[in-house]
Amino acid sequence: MDKIKVAVLGGTGTVGQRYVQLLEGHPWFELSEICASESSAGKRYADAVRGRWKISADVPEYAADIAVKECIPELDAVALLSGLDSSVAGDIEEMYANRGYIVSSNSRNHRMDPDVPLLIAEVNPEHVKAVEKQMERRKNSGFIITNPNCSTIGLAIPLKALYDEFSIGKVNVTTMQAISGAGYPGMSAFDMVDNVHPCIPGEEEKIQTETQKILGCYDDGFIYADIEIAASCNRVFVLDGHKEDVFIEIGGDPDIEHVQKTLENFRSVPQDLGLPSAPEKPIIIRHEQDRPQPRYDRNAGNGMSVVVGRVRKAPTGDYVFECLSHNTIRGAAGCSILNLELLKSCGYVGV
Amino acid sequence: MDKIKVAVLGGTGTVGQRYVQLLEGHPWFELSEICASESSAGKRYADAVRGRWKISADVPEYAADIAVKECIPELDAVALLSGLDSSVAGDIEEMYANRGYIVSSNSRNHRMDPDVPLLIAEVNPEHVKAVEKQMERRKNSGFIITNPNCSTIGLAIPLKALYDEFSIGKVNVTTMQAISGAGYPGMSAFDMVDNVHPCIPGEEEKIQTETQKILGCYDDGFIYADIEIAASCNRVFVLDGHKEDVFIEIGGDPDIEHVQKTLENFRSVPQDLGLPSAPEKPIIIRHEQDRPQPRYDRNAGNGMSVVVGRVRKAPTGDYVFECLSHNTIRGAAGCSILNLELLKSCGYVGV
Amino acid sequence: MDKIKVAVLGGTGTVGQRYVQLLEGHPWFELSEICASESSAGKRYADAVRGRWKISADVPEYAADIAVKECIPELDAVALLSGLDSSVAGDIEEMYANRGYIVSSNSRNHRMDPDVPLLIAEVNPEHVKAVEKQMERRKNSGFIITNPNCSTIGLAIPLKALYDEFSIGKVNVTTMQAISGAGYPGMSAFDMVDNVHPCIPGEEEKIQTETQKILGCYDDGFIYADIEIAASCNRVFVLDGHKEDVFIEIGGDPDIEHVQKTLENFRSVPQDLGLPSAPEKPIIIRHEQDRPQPRYDRNAGNGMSVVVGRVRKAPTGDYVFECLSHNTIRGAAGCSILNLELLKSCGYVGV
Amino acid sequence: MDKIKVAVLGGTGTVGQRYVQLLEGHPWFELSEICASESSAGKRYADAVRGRWKISADVPEYAADIAVKECIPELDAVALLSGLDSSVAGDIEEMYANRGYIVSSNSRNHRMDPDVPLLIAEVNPEHVKAVEKQMERRKNSGFIITNPNCSTIGLAIPLKALYDEFSIGKVNVTTMQAISGAGYPGMSAFDMVDNVHPCIPGEEEKIQTETQKILGCYDDGFIYADIEIAASCNRVFVLDGHKEDVFIEIGGDPDIEHVQKTLENFRSVPQDLGLPSAPEKPIIIRHEQDRPQPRYDRNAGNGMSVVVGRVRKAPTGDYVFECLSHNTIRGAAGCSILNLELLKSCGYVGV
Repeated sequence: MDKIKVAVLGGTGTVGQRYVQLLEGHPWFELSEICASESSAGKRYADAVRGRWKISADVPEYAADIAVKECIPELDAVALLSGLDSSVAGDIEEMYANRGYIVSSNSRNHRMDPDVPLLIAEVNPEHVKAVEKQMERRKNSGFIITNPNCSTIGLAIPLKALYDEFSIGKVNVTTMQAISGAGYPGMSAFDMVDNVHPCIPGEEEKIQTETQKILGCYDDGFIYADIEIAASCNRVFVLDGHKEDVFIEIGGDPDIEHVQKTLENFRSVPQDLGLPSAPEKPIIIRHEQDRPQPRYDRNAGNGMSVVVGRVRKAPTGDYVFECLSHNTIRGAAGCSILNLELLKSCGYVGV
Repeated sequence: MDKIKVAVLGGTGTVGQRYVQLLEGHPWFELSEICASESSAGKRYADAVRGRWKISADVPEYAADIAVKECIPELDAVALLSGLDSSVAGDIEEMYANRGYIVSSNSRNHRMDPDVPLLIAEVNPEHVKAVEKQMERRKNSGFIITNPNCSTIGLAIPLKALYDEFSIGKVNVTTMQAISGAGYPGMSAFDMVDNVHPCIPGEEEKIQTETQKILGCYDDGFIYADIEIAASCNRVFVLDGHKEDVFIEIGGDPDIEHVQKTLENFRSVPQDLGLPSAPEKPIIIRHEQDRPQPRYDRNAGNGMSVVVGRVRKAPTGDYVFECLSHNTIRGAAGCSILNLELLKSCGYVGV
Repeated sequence: MDKIKVAVLGGTGTVGQRYVQLLEGHPWFELSEICASESSAGKRYADAVRGRWKISADVPEYAADIAVKECIPELDAVALLSGLDSSVAGDIEEMYANRGYIVSSNSRNHRMDPDVPLLIAEVNPEHVKAVEKQMERRKNSGFIITNPNCSTIGLAIPLKALYDEFSIGKVNVTTMQAISGAGYPGMSAFDMVDNVHPCIPGEEEKIQTETQKILGCYDDGFIYADIEIAASCNRVFVLDGHKEDVFIEIGGDPDIEHVQKTLENFRSVPQDLGLPSAPEKPIIIRHEQDRPQPRYDRNAGNGMSVVVGRVRKAPTGDYVFECLSHNTIRGAAGCSILNLELLKSCGYVGV
Repeated sequence: MDKIKVAVLGGTGTVGQRYVQLLEGHPWFELSEICASESSAGKRYADAVRGRWKISADVPEYAADIAVKECIPELDAVALLSGLDSSVAGDIEEMYANRGYIVSSNSRNHRMDPDVPLLIAEVNPEHVKAVEKQMERRKNSGFIITNPNCSTIGLAIPLKALYDEFSIGKVNVTTMQAISGAGYPGMSAFDMVDNVHPCIPGEEEKIQTETQKILGCYDDGFIYADIEIAASCNRVFVLDGHKEDVFIEIGGDPDIEHVQKTLENFRSVPQDLGLPSAPEKPIIIRHEQDRPQPRYDRNAGNGMSVVVGRVRKAPTGDYVFECLSHNTIRGAAGCSILNLELLKSCGYVGV
């Protein structure tokens, strides 16, 4: 099988770099183009990210010599992975979809559009149907799919497992989010020495509204789930890995083992299909009292598993658990690659 | 007026050092004795804490030459401030109270005793009455008062303000607690690099049970408050200052201004009496979106004010706020000194 | 005596904020104007620095209501403290000096000018004479004085003490510099998690060239000192306080006590004159093996003393010591205020 | 070929864990035994390190079920890798060698023994000859080889390259060492918040004395090299990776390219023999101004390469470079495994 050519948009940013890293040796996709802003256009990729490559020691060799382009109308690619900044992502992604490209985006601009799936492959794979509405509207085979915000993804996966099994009431979540979630340069070190930063603009609203769309259903249109979430978001001095402490009302007074098993046994379409980026276990349960921890648990399942620990029942009668997910893999680049794999499996890409 | 002689027990530990620092120049109390373990006994205080003095550059001069003693039965002091480790605090504090000393303790051992006040001077000053029960039991004028756990104190003060004004339902709180709360050496740096530590043994239970006692009333015995709190406690890489993100059900749908004003205007007995360590405002409201922050807000009111920010109403209908308190001042040494000041004002000390 | 009116240029930046903080209650100087860039002009100072005030919890009340101006030609001030960014400092400072103002600058632009003192009040007070050359050239009473780069200052003070007493050969210095030295937002937190940053552009050259001017003499022109310094500069995750590990060749094989005493006993003109910002001891020697440490030693002498520790003789025959100085007080704002005090004492300001 | 059975001594500590990790899938060696202190004896390895396994998310499966033993006289192994604490390593290692075992130790106890090689396989492979002296003395085939202290190793490798090519004079080195170098729990987090720790007891002396032995030659006895090194050692808030800033006198005024090439082209016996743990390049030169950095460079060559950057000539005429090495791989466990591989290649193990 020939690989499907994929372009990365916003390839020099934090999420763009993850796309490039994760596409190395991908069995289905081949990185054919890297697009970025005018200042990078024309440079070798390795030169364009010099001093800004922040994932590991070196730019992967396979991508180093690709000539970076601006987001020009014609790209040698079928599908585009977008890590574009939200200040420009809206129009550019729309332009490409209108020209027949398939766009899997990490940007927030189109997440709440009425015919754009806000997709986590394990959580709402049936939402892919909405792309047909888009194709109809656009009168071509182009469309946009989006993945949610990083802190939403880490929460929505365990919530989905519980939502399917139990009657869920109010959810309260406090996040301790990693530095890389703010991009580069992002947070000032000045603000992080001996400190916690208590505010991530827009984040708390996204957790509530995005989750309602994700956990909702699609029937010729999105029907939002009736779930209410209050979030309080913090930035802590951790490189990668968002930790979220979750308080949740669950009806029927299930015992802890039932709740744990429900989380642990959660499997979904990507696991059934054996998609290349799908983790064997979407949720990994740790039973130690001192887990999950960002440094130890963020790479579980190649960064695609959500690690849940300290599942317990509170004196209030609610349930409490703590979850940890890699914010730029499961919570961003890895999620949109997996989404694209799902779309391919469903016959929407590369047929 | 002659100053009242005060001894510090456990004077070489993290809380003990704060006592020594805060007693410098105290208008009512005079540090007359410092007690610590056998290994420190006989040394000058400055020598006993060499390499372990962790508050500032230098041991206060006024205390440097005090000869450290073991916790011997007779001390040249009327009242004792105890920062003893809980492995020994129980018996030693009891011994001193039985010998007629007044003990204001930060240790957890006697907190839940049926005739021992678990006291935050602003929150439950009427609980001081319980010491009369103790005096009766002990047949002398000795007694023990305790202050709650650091994370409980930071939460109980704003809860009290709300509890007096509104009908309060369930409370969920996630803490991000400072390193100094674990004492010295306490947390390993190995565990804190690029990490959040998700578990503080016993802490979550204390927040629930202690708050019920504190917010309860005293009528010839403690009647626990009917309040339910679920807590999730974390250690973050911050030196001083516990941040707590609180979700709370408040009946009657008050508007945010009402909630804020209730917090902001909270005053209590220590303010009325003008106690030396009482902050002018027990609660300071910050209106900026990026406050409170540990580094900036922990020293508010000389470390005795709780700083509350980001008061808001969540999509769930609950209210959310974030509070910050200095864990070794408001949450420990400062609290027990203020408690002792209250007892003195009430005529129980030094008459 | 009426206080001398002083304006702060670049008042919203990291150094500008320190000027504002340090001028509170200054016995000789009164903050009369705050100048900053166009975007801040017209605002109350407290509003101009909202979200950017990084020193402590709150803007000092005395300065909060001052209306910020651009660097307009006429200011209600005799002397100007400049924390301007080097991209604009050169021309603006020159303009003010040409209009008769006295400028004490922390910016690098005029440091190496042939008639501008590069001044550390304790190290080269006799260099103030150069301002007469400037007055002659400008044909008015305006002039510029500058203070060195922060890492140079912390090193030059102990070097001066040794230079006066011993025959000094090669100097090697490795710095571990604080985050605040890069201004705000300055260093990205992304680069500082679990890391040391190995390069501070231009810093190593400044240490060498500035020290030669500072330790040189002035005789109708600057004669540079014949001292050679190799520097290697790093940024570490510390808020304030530059640590420098120094290897130095000293002739005559003095014993360690002699070297320590020479450092410890160093006094200079500011101490003799009792200048308001002069620390009692320019150099404080610590004898503990684990000092100096940034967190404990940066505030010594109100941030104006250099703390030196671990003075020792190496197997190479050279001497080694480690010094610590507060980079935005001794190394920046405090230094230029002290310099201005020296100029006033010499009759160059406000007569 | 059957694999050689290897035991790890001190298997629950920081270095012991690295041995276990690095031995997974080793082509020549097979982990047959794990020894630790009494408190761990009898437990499965996974249980013995529960809560103390600090390298990655999980204990390698292959080792999880090995039953931990005390350091009993008879082990089912030919060679022993020792990460024992120096308080016990001396006697235990001697006991095993006397019983005919081959011990490759990371502990400091026997490093300076007159017939024990202090070995870095790339630097002084010819020192292995000394084990014959030991065998003679012990009258069996047992012997001890040791690897140097972690900060010594990172420095000695580039020094060796330069020492072979140039005439080397005085060396000054300042280290910024990682937290993991202090073991677990090791450094208190209390001491590392907003701080640099200026003292690592014994470290500075080891750098000097060990390097003299390593760079010396062996001719029926060790002849120490005539090299003088002054070191100043710091602990910084970095997990893994020691950074060292080196000032060195080099005779003959070579140009920078010559120095760089000499470092870059350094190859030695382990590379010639293709030993399994030998990095392709013992020294990797980075040309970017902002390298080496601990987070990016510590894993170069699977943690076995030393990364050198910022090679430059100082105003003093000396040369300056900065090097970075993984302290628990190249600087500890990886080094002693490679040493053992060298011994095997030379026919001293497993024949």
